[in-house]
Amino acid sequence: MSKISVLPPSGFRDFTPEESAVRSFLIEKISGTYQSHGFQAIAMPFMENLATLEGKGGGAGNEKLIFKVLKRGESLTRSLEKGEGNLADMGMRFDLTLPLARYYSRFKQQLPKPFKVFQVGPVWRADSPQKGRYREFYQCDVDVLGSREIGAEADCMTALLKVFATLQVENVELHLNDRRLLAALKDADLSDEQWMEALVTLDKLDKVERSGVEEELTAKFGRVPEGIRQVLDGTSLEKLKTVHSESAESMEALLAVLKESAPGTKVIFNPSLVRGQDYYTGTIFELRHPELSGSLGGGGRYNRLLEVFGGEEVPAFGGSIGFERLFLLIQEKAEALKISNSTPQVFLPLFSQELRAPLMKLATELREKGLRVDVYPDAAKLKNQFKYADDRKIPFTVIIGSDEFAARTVKVKSMAERTEESVSMDSLADHLLKQINR
Amino acid sequence: MSKISVLPPSGFRDFTPEESAVRSFLIEKISGTYQSHGFQAIAMPFMENLATLEGKGGGAGNEKLIFKVLKRGESLTRSLEKGEGNLADMGMRFDLTLPLARYYSRFKQQLPKPFKVFQVGPVWRADSPQKGRYREFYQCDVDVLGSREIGAEADCMTALLKVFATLQVENVELHLNDRRLLAALKDADLSDEQWMEALVTLDKLDKVERSGVEEELTAKFGRVPEGIRQVLDGTSLEKLKTVHSESAESMEALLAVLKESAPGTKVIFNPSLVRGQDYYTGTIFELRHPELSGSLGGGGRYNRLLEVFGGEEVPAFGGSIGFERLFLLIQEKAEALKISNSTPQVFLPLFSQELRAPLMKLATELREKGLRVDVYPDAAKLKNQFKYADDRKIPFTVIIGSDEFAARTVKVKSMAERTEESVSMDSLADHLLKQINR
Repeated sequence: MSKISVLPPSGFRDFTPEESAVRSFLIEKISGTYQSHGFQAIAMPFMENLATLEGKGGGAGNEKLIFKVLKRGESLTRSLEKGEGNLADMGMRFDLTLPLARYYSRFKQQLPKPFKVFQVGPVWRADSPQKGRYREFYQCDVDVLGSREIGAEADCMTALLKVFATLQVENVELHLNDRRLLAALKDADLSDEQWMEALVTLDKLDKVERSGVEEELTAKFGRVPEGIRQVLDGTSLEKLKTVHSESAESMEALLAVLKESAPGTKVIFNPSLVRGQDYYTGTIFELRHPELSGSLGGGGRYNRLLEVFGGEEVPAFGGSIGFERLFLLIQEKAEALKISNSTPQVFLPLFSQELRAPLMKLATELREKGLRVDVYPDAAKLKNQFKYADDRKIPFTVIIGSDEFAARTVKVKSMAERTEESVSMDSLADHLLKQINR
Repeated sequence: MSKISVLPPSGFRDFTPEESAVRSFLIEKISGTYQSHGFQAIAMPFMENLATLEGKGGGAGNEKLIFKVLKRGESLTRSLEKGEGNLADMGMRFDLTLPLARYYSRFKQQLPKPFKVFQVGPVWRADSPQKGRYREFYQCDVDVLGSREIGAEADCMTALLKVFATLQVENVELHLNDRRLLAALKDADLSDEQWMEALVTLDKLDKVERSGVEEELTAKFGRVPEGIRQVLDGTSLEKLKTVHSESAESMEALLAVLKESAPGTKVIFNPSLVRGQDYYTGTIFELRHPELSGSLGGGGRYNRLLEVFGGEEVPAFGGSIGFERLFLLIQEKAEALKISNSTPQVFLPLFSQELRAPLMKLATELREKGLRVDVYPDAAKLKNQFKYADDRKIPFTVIIGSDEFAARTVKVKSMAERTEESVSMDSLADHLLKQINR
C-alpha cells in the first residue's frame, strides 16, 4: 500500500490537544463576552454560491482569494466542453460580513431591529502561505444591523475591548477615524478612484513612515495631495470640524461614550487610519498594541453593503477580533489563565479483564456525580497505565484491584501531593469532589 | 445594481438565532459528555489534500462525494492546457475519521497511548440534496486509537449513550455485531467481494424485509447464500461461537460491560447489522430508536485504516452521533430542556442622546457583576425600544431617563411578572442578580 502524506495542505494547520484547548477556551470567552453585551449567535454555511461571494466582494481584493468549488457531474462536463472557464459554482466564504449581509437580507422581516449579532468561525483565503498567514483561519465578528447612531459603534467596540480585558491583554489601543472625513479631505482635481489610491498609500504610514508615503504619492500623482499633507502634518479633530462637521461631531460623541464604557482604554483619533475594505461608509477603527506590529482587530460602518441583496439601504456597523493573532498571544499565557484541557479529574486503571464491568460501573457512578473520569481501556501493564495518567496530567488515580473491590475500600492517589489515602467506595465520589473543589 | 439571491446554495442551511441556540446547546452537551468520559478535543483543517481523501476513501462510496477545490493560478492553467482532468488539488473532508487517521499518524509519538479523542464539526458531501439530507452537516465522533480490547468499544458506546440520556431522548437501542462473525459466515464458493455485496444486501433487511433481501440475493447469486440464510433464520450468539469463537466471546464480554456502564439501555445482538464502511474490521454498532426509521449513530472498529498513512497497524475504534437527526429531535423539546439563547437578562432603553454615555457606563458596571446587558443603540421612540425587548424576550428592563439619573433611582420592570419596582442605582446589580437567580 503506498503511503500517503501525514501533513495537512500547505497553509492549513493541525492543532495539538493543548492548542485545541486554548482555541476552545478563546472561542468560549469571546462568545461569552459578546453575549454579555447583548449580541446573539447565528450560523450560516461555510460555502456560498460564487455569485454571492463575487457580487460585491469583500473589497480589499479578498474576492480574488476565493477557494472555488469545482462543479460536479454533467454541469462540469458541459462547462469543460464549452471551454468557457466557469468551472466552479460555489466558493468558501472569505469573511463573515458578506454572508451576514445575505442572511440579514433574507430574514430581516423576522429578526429584531436592530439586530445585534455575533459569529465565530472559519474563513478561507487562497493567499500564498507565509509565517502567521494561514489559508484557513477564524474570525470573530460583532455586528449591529439596522442602527444608524453611534450606539452601534460603541456597542461593538466596547465588546471587543472587553474581550482583551477579560484575557488580561493590556494596553490595547483603539484607533478611530471616519471615511466621511477622509472623503471630505479629497483634493478637488482627483477622482474618487485616485483618492482611494492615495488613501491606500496613506494607510502604509505605519510601515513606511512619512517619507515612504510621500515618495509613493509623488510617484503616483506628481505631488503629495493637499488632503494627505494635512493628515501627515497632524490635523486635529477640532480642525476637521470645518472639513466635515457631522463626522467630527459624531466622533467626539463616540469618544465621550467610550470613556465610560471602556474605561482605561487609550482611544486615539487617527486621521491616517484607512482600513482596506471598499465598503466602509463612516466610522472605521482598529485595535493595536504598542508592542506588536499590525492589528489585533478592527472594523467599520458599512451602510451600503446590504443593497446588493435587496436594493434597500440598511445601516450597519461591525467589528472583528484577529483571532489567530490573539491565539498566539494567549498561548504564551495559557498557564496563567488556567486554561485546562477539560482533562479528566479521575483515572481508573484496569487491573484485569474480570474487573472491567465493575470498574465501568464505578466510572458511571462517579460521572453521575459530575466527575470527569477516564478508565484505561486495556488490561495492560500497570506501569504503562500510570504513565498514561501522568502524560494526561490526571490529578487523581483510584487504585482498585480485586482485593479493593472485595473490601469495598480503594486507594486514592493524588498526583500533586504524592499522597495515597484509603477511602470507602461508598464515600469515594464525595471524597474526590471535596479534594477537587478545595 | 443587480440583486443577488439571498439564499444559501442548494443543500446548505442558514440557521435562525433560535436554531443556532439549539445547535450550540447540543454541541456543548455532547462535548461536555465526551469530556466527562475521558475524551479530549483536537482540531484539524476542514480542507484536505485530495490524495488524503481519495487514498483509501471513507468507504461506502463517500469518496465519490467529495466537494473538490479548484486549483488556482498557473497550476490551474497548466492542468487545463494539458486537458488531463486534474483540476482540483484539495477537497472538503467528508468525514472526521480519515482526517483523524492522518492526524494520529502524524503525531502519534507525542500523543497519549491510547489516544481518546473527540471531534465535533462540519463535513461536506456532494450528494443530491433532499429532505433531511444536507451537503454540509455536523458529525460528533469519539475514537480510541491504540487500544485493542473491548474497553475502547465500551468507552465509546457508553459516552454516546450518555449523550442521549442527558438530552432525555429515551428508549435508544444499541444494535451490535462483528465484521469477523460476518466474514466467518461466508459461503466457501463466494469471493470476498461477492460476500461484501451479499452483506450490503443483507443490510437492507430493515427497509425491504426478508423477502426483499432474498429476492435481491437470488437475482445476484442465483440463490440465498447459506451464511445469509443463517442470519435471516435468526441465529444466536451462542450458536455463532462455533462460527467465530473469538468475536462471539468478546461480544459477550462487551454485553456484560454495557449492562453496568449504560444501565437501562436495550443492547441487542443483531447479526444482520452490516454498516456501510469498507474499513471496519471487528465490532460494529448502530444506535436506533423504535419509533424512528434510520439510525441515530453508530460506528465500529477499524484496525487497518491507519496503515495508509504509516504502514503500521494501529488498533482503533470509533463511533459517532447523527447530529442533524438529533438536532431535529431536540428542537421539539427545546423548551423542556431550557435551552436559552443566552439572551440578555437586562435591557436598558436609551431615552436621549445625552444619556448615552452614562447609560453605557451603567451597562459596563452591570456586566462587571456578571449580568448580560443589552443597551438600545439608538435614541428611538420608546415604543420601538420596548417592542425590541419583547421580541428578544429580555426578562428585565431598567427605566432610566434623566430624572432617574438625577435621583439615582431607577424603575425595574419584570416582563414575566408585569411588575415595576423602584430601585436605587447603587443596589441595582444586586437587585437584578437576586431576581434572576431566584
